[in-house]
Amino acid sequence: MEKMPLKTVKEQLAEVQGWKLEDEKWLIKKYRFRSFLDSISFVNEIAKLSEEENHHPFISVDFKVVTLKLTSWRAKGITELDLMLIKKYDSLFGPYQINTSK
Amino acid sequence: MEKMPLKTVKEQLAEVQGWKLEDEKWLIKKYRFRSFLDSISFVNEIAKLSEEENHHPFISVDFKVVTLKLTSWRAKGITELDLMLIKKYDSLFGPYQINTSK
Repeated sequence: MEKMPLKTVKEQLAEVQGWKLEDEKWLIKKYRFRSFLDSISFVNEIAKLSEEENHHPFISVDFKVVTLKLTSWRAKGITELDLMLIKKYDSLFGPYQINTSK
Repeated sequence: MEKMPLKTVKEQLAEVQGWKLEDEKWLIKKYRFRSFLDSISFVNEIAKLSEEENHHPFISVDFKVVTLKLTSWRAKGITELDLMLIKKYDSLFGPYQINTSK
């Protein structure tokens, strides 16, 4: 899979929430949870998906905050796969989302 | 629980393997696994212990490498609890250990 032009990456990032581009090759997002165990449960869902797609983000758990960091090593940048996966990550996060408007 | 004198921390770290002291208040170790799923399985065991002890390390997963980073916030340094926990982490790691002598 080929590296996506930076312009396209930025356009696509405008359509998702909370994802940042770093060094033109990393997609990063911090997810906040109600509890540490919710963090860990989310990590397990991300892990399962990562194995299925054979594409593994860096995962870090800082108590109730999980950070995901993604790139495509072979392409030396962001590919369609990365953009597809961050949407899946967001969708897995859905049920955990803290409704801050309440 | 009180902060442990730095001298004592260093003496105790001489008795474990692979643990480093950073900024005089962090205990850090990288664990290497056979597979990503082993990494995740270990993270789950660490998470369970962390909840039981109500003391949560930073956890990061970089494919087959898991890094744990521990401190006692309230004590602003390393306590007996931290030193006790790193031994438990090592013991949980036991079954995953890669025998490099083979």
